[in-house]
Amino acid sequence: MSSEKIPYKIYLNEDEMPKAWYNLRADMKQKPAPLLNPETYQPVKAEELEAVFCKDLIAQELDQDTAFFEIPEEIRSFYIMYRPSPLVRAYCLEEKLGTPAKIYYKFEGNNTSGSHKLNSAIAQAYYAKKQGLKGVTTETGAGQWGTALSMACSYLGLDCKVYMVKCSYEQKPFRREVMRTYGASVTPSPSTETEVGRKILEKHPGTSGSLGCAISEAVEKAVSSEGYRYVLGSVLNQVLLHQSVIGLETKAAMDKYDIKPDIIIGCAGGGSNLGGLISPFMGEKLRGEADYRFIAVEPASCPSFTRGVYAYDYCDTGMVCPLSKMYTLGSDFIPSASHSGGLRYHGMSSTLSELYHQGLLEAVSVKQTDVFQAAEYFARVEGILPAPESSHAIRVAIDEAVRCKETGEEKTILFGLTGTGYFDMVAYEKFHENKMDDYVPTDEELAVYRNNLPQIK
Amino acid sequence: MSSEKIPYKIYLNEDEMPKAWYNLRADMKQKPAPLLNPETYQPVKAEELEAVFCKDLIAQELDQDTAFFEIPEEIRSFYIMYRPSPLVRAYCLEEKLGTPAKIYYKFEGNNTSGSHKLNSAIAQAYYAKKQGLKGVTTETGAGQWGTALSMACSYLGLDCKVYMVKCSYEQKPFRREVMRTYGASVTPSPSTETEVGRKILEKHPGTSGSLGCAISEAVEKAVSSEGYRYVLGSVLNQVLLHQSVIGLETKAAMDKYDIKPDIIIGCAGGGSNLGGLISPFMGEKLRGEADYRFIAVEPASCPSFTRGVYAYDYCDTGMVCPLSKMYTLGSDFIPSASHSGGLRYHGMSSTLSELYHQGLLEAVSVKQTDVFQAAEYFARVEGILPAPESSHAIRVAIDEAVRCKETGEEKTILFGLTGTGYFDMVAYEKFHENKMDDYVPTDEELAVYRNNLPQIK
Repeated sequence: MSSEKIPYKIYLNEDEMPKAWYNLRADMKQKPAPLLNPETYQPVKAEELEAVFCKDLIAQELDQDTAFFEIPEEIRSFYIMYRPSPLVRAYCLEEKLGTPAKIYYKFEGNNTSGSHKLNSAIAQAYYAKKQGLKGVTTETGAGQWGTALSMACSYLGLDCKVYMVKCSYEQKPFRREVMRTYGASVTPSPSTETEVGRKILEKHPGTSGSLGCAISEAVEKAVSSEGYRYVLGSVLNQVLLHQSVIGLETKAAMDKYDIKPDIIIGCAGGGSNLGGLISPFMGEKLRGEADYRFIAVEPASCPSFTRGVYAYDYCDTGMVCPLSKMYTLGSDFIPSASHSGGLRYHGMSSTLSELYHQGLLEAVSVKQTDVFQAAEYFARVEGILPAPESSHAIRVAIDEAVRCKETGEEKTILFGLTGTGYFDMVAYEKFHENKMDDYVPTDEELAVYRNNLPQIK
Repeated sequence: MSSEKIPYKIYLNEDEMPKAWYNLRADMKQKPAPLLNPETYQPVKAEELEAVFCKDLIAQELDQDTAFFEIPEEIRSFYIMYRPSPLVRAYCLEEKLGTPAKIYYKFEGNNTSGSHKLNSAIAQAYYAKKQGLKGVTTETGAGQWGTALSMACSYLGLDCKVYMVKCSYEQKPFRREVMRTYGASVTPSPSTETEVGRKILEKHPGTSGSLGCAISEAVEKAVSSEGYRYVLGSVLNQVLLHQSVIGLETKAAMDKYDIKPDIIIGCAGGGSNLGGLISPFMGEKLRGEADYRFIAVEPASCPSFTRGVYAYDYCDTGMVCPLSKMYTLGSDFIPSASHSGGLRYHGMSSTLSELYHQGLLEAVSVKQTDVFQAAEYFARVEGILPAPESSHAIRVAIDEAVRCKETGEEKTILFGLTGTGYFDMVAYEKFHENKMDDYVPTDEELAVYRNNLPQIK
């Protein structure tokens, strides 16, 4: 089909949609380091995780060898409500930039959660339901993950309890309201509902919360409630597994038209979208079948890849979750209050961390005013108002396309457009009114957090 | 292709998209009554409208005979950025309702303006640009139209000046911010920028504005500014013409799978979405080729079809626009402050009014708490959080499907899902907190406004 004009939007037919998720770790020679028990520092066993996580999800989390996991029928029925998502050829952007590059983006924002998070939310809710649980608990920062989980739980008839980072809870009342529409209960974190929340409030009475703290509260609530488990929207291997649906659809759509990307770009907070998008392409690279450049884009104000260290660290402030070996800024790190949008987690997926460590993946950090410039430019040219997170990838895709213009190279650039910014207009407003700064943590600041890393022999 | 399983979402290929708009009036034996000059009460001539409207749009407005207008290449290039929109088979809704009915909806919300309004916005902006104008002015109530026009103007490099009904401006700062992202200037109406605005403010100092007043301001601004014209997002024949793209795509998608709807349902404020959706189907009915039931759904708090009169009336509060023969509540009518969402215009498209008058179209009115119940139900079952306006159609589609369950009839129901409710969470919040009432105007109240209709012999 390579001689056909490539349409603006490539949609797979429903029968072309992936029937199995792809587990990238199966093709890694050097596997990601195992999770450690936070008390014994020994590799965590499945049964030790069962108080916190659902059984089937633990199996997916710990399985480094099985390449494909069948997507259960019920999850595929849900996917079909909002998937396949379009692979868009950015003809307008190319023309406006005057670049010889060919730009594609996989757009995950055409669903009510507004992002790719729904891909893993329905999977995690499904396994919780399968296990006969009453409900799940989770944290949410910017709100996409909480919204996605609310939708999934509502669909399956599960209870959903969300701890929302307090500053987001206050700045994003509409996100909260969407979650309520889907029947979730939403609590600003830190709260007085949990021991860890009360402790943090006592230590920092005026705190506006953090992801690490909200995670600790959600975990405590799950462990202390009959019939509940905790679920997480990023970072974990299981999440990357579910998000592989993004990459698999993208690759199938590209293969249909004989398109081969040279550069694949994704924003990176915990790594779920990037890991999902690159999965099948990185698999080919690991198996020596093809080569691609992969670029992770992170905020300069939360630079875990580019300025963090590769070490075991706590995943949450309360230190109740297993330890993960990852690029981290330290579990106490919280990005500056002037940082808008998500991508504010202190660490990074252990799988992506290992790939980065092996030099298979590049990383760059970008400043937020540059990100919002790209966002507004993109909105005007391509007609989609992007999420601040997604706009990190847009920024670098544009930069690469401009480089192609300078060199005359006709590269094919693929990036992940993870979501829409409809609930992020406060950040856009700050940008329009020049109230957005580009604070970047100093080396001295970062050193303070780094000194708190657990000392593992 | 009728034996195939019908997919969840039917997308036309890009080369199957309509290349011409369909002008329903061409097939009407009894045409809509002509617009009248507000001073002479004589049928308005094209040249009398040229101070206010763009030339090509006036030609479309007044042409009752040409059945098809080619869609210019540049507009089709824009359409392709967000169209074709999916025709969705509501399998989940059918299952949840346990109805033998087959339910389809045409979903127009997958674009940043969040609604179908973009279909006419780009057309109107295109003709303004073609005429060499600097910019356009308009009004917006709920904000969808203003957002759509901002996007279209940004794409074409036109200036865009929006008068936003003051209560919306205050309640929906994020809509305003989206418009700013697209470079539009947004003024709360009534404002002190125009004579008509100043007059209204003097008479009603605390007013929160109305659509009729915002229209008057936008018209005055256009007429008094060099190189500007006024554009309107609904009611007018030209808008129904552009919106026929919705119906044409729907019909093409249904024909592909040999689907024939029995009932076609749309919400109705000024009539743009309903008129667009039903166009090709109504055309068949008018030509005696097929029969369908058409249902317009309007808010009980603004019941122009069901409780208005069919008469010539002013389109705007300032009485500067031509008079239109339509179902109207009187140009001073403003829905109760407790009314949430759009569909608040006092009148109705003259084309739809004539069809309703001839008994070719039915109308029902629904109360807003019933509408929000349907909205929340739909959001949970179909995964899309609908706009309050669209939810009027959902309400009646569900009611009809439930009726099929009772009678055992396997009817095929089609409705227009015009947009998403992401910027309407204040209304959802009111609903969740039981702060929403169902105020319906009394006959005495309606009589007051009706007495102010112009006396035309």
